[in-house]
Amino acid sequence: MTAADARPIEIGLLLFPRLTQLDLTGPFEVLARLPGARVRLLWKTLEPVRSDTGLAILPDTALPDCPQLDLLCVPGGPGVAAMMEDEAVLAFLRRQAAGARYLASVCTGALVLGAAGLLRGRRATTHWASHDFLPALGATPVRARVVRDGRLFTGGGVTAGIDFALAIAAEIAGEEAAQAIQLQIEYAPDPPFAAGSPEGAPAAVLERARRRGAAMREEREALVARVAARLAAA
Amino acid sequence: MTAADARPIEIGLLLFPRLTQLDLTGPFEVLARLPGARVRLLWKTLEPVRSDTGLAILPDTALPDCPQLDLLCVPGGPGVAAMMEDEAVLAFLRRQAAGARYLASVCTGALVLGAAGLLRGRRATTHWASHDFLPALGATPVRARVVRDGRLFTGGGVTAGIDFALAIAAEIAGEEAAQAIQLQIEYAPDPPFAAGSPEGAPAAVLERARRRGAAMREEREALVARVAARLAAA
Repeated sequence: MTAADARPIEIGLLLFPRLTQLDLTGPFEVLARLPGARVRLLWKTLEPVRSDTGLAILPDTALPDCPQLDLLCVPGGPGVAAMMEDEAVLAFLRRQAAGARYLASVCTGALVLGAAGLLRGRRATTHWASHDFLPALGATPVRARVVRDGRLFTGGGVTAGIDFALAIAAEIAGEEAAQAIQLQIEYAPDPPFAAGSPEGAPAAVLERARRRGAAMREEREALVARVAARLAAA
Repeated sequence: MTAADARPIEIGLLLFPRLTQLDLTGPFEVLARLPGARVRLLWKTLEPVRSDTGLAILPDTALPDCPQLDLLCVPGGPGVAAMMEDEAVLAFLRRQAAGARYLASVCTGALVLGAAGLLRGRRATTHWASHDFLPALGATPVRARVVRDGRLFTGGGVTAGIDFALAIAAEIAGEEAAQAIQLQIEYAPDPPFAAGSPEGAPAAVLERARRRGAAMREEREALVARVAARLAAA
């Protein structure tokens, strides 16, 4: 983009209570470096929003004041449970989705898109621990770091947001622009362990994660069933 | 850690104007999940601090109110230039460093540690584009994603903060605790390109990055020379 391009590429990230902040801050870091892009943080009010681990971030655009976005992205985190039954948020997502060039989620943000009816018939991914909820929301689950189906981009859990954002940066501005951002953020990852996926993690670590997540899964099963029933009736 | 461990592991991340937010938010996501840890965001006031790309984050602890930290970490970004000559900040770092178990930086945060005299005689790394400034600040430069020298951990550019934080999580709480966090944040990275380092990036992308960074490098050369002179005189 050059100065002659008057209109910025409007990108909006939903910023809601108890989100997992890295689902949002990873893509923010990449997308804010995209030439010609304006990245908005969207919430109901402009009061600080607190992540599941206590990071407080300021939104900059209230949902009713948001212009039509080119790219709308929903991050995940424990707070998605409330978002999945928040009719004001779901209506906002549907309205924006109708005119957006790209629709996206990171981590369990996919469940919110699903609750808005926006994953019906689409291939999608989400955090590994919630992956099996996708079919109830009408999606075809694909186990991959980033899944594209037409204008829909979904990323896996948390850190997949960085991979997702580089993929969509390449789609919007070309491979060289995405590569320039990758170099700026020195994204040549080298995790100290191979524990980043259920397939790679030591069995004991996976087993403990499953045990610790059992209560939340039970709640989420009931939630997804309610949301699926509502989608079927709509 | 169990409930019987009364004192939390006190972790502090410096949050300063024009930092690169992912230098901080990546490690925050990992360290805030460490059992028994309390992560503080430290700045002079509690007013929102804006990153180089415009993300506004709230600090929670003013520098004079900060207890002795177990781990102090300085992120990087264009704002390090001001920090490197900010006597109040440098004095805070020196005071904390005297009692901390671990001292750390991500990206060009290393230059701030260096300006505080805390890299003298230590092996360290930083963002690739600033790596050659390390010797003037007394450090022995090592090109690696994460470098440990005794109680000092330094990470490379931006996203290296995630690798750094997992390494220090393992040091503090053991490998299984670090692996559990890696699984939670699904950190099985899969960048769409190999452009994350000067060695891997296409020549044209690297050349353009160097051209675009030339003015900032010139300023930073003068700054590092001033700071090095001050260190030599101290």
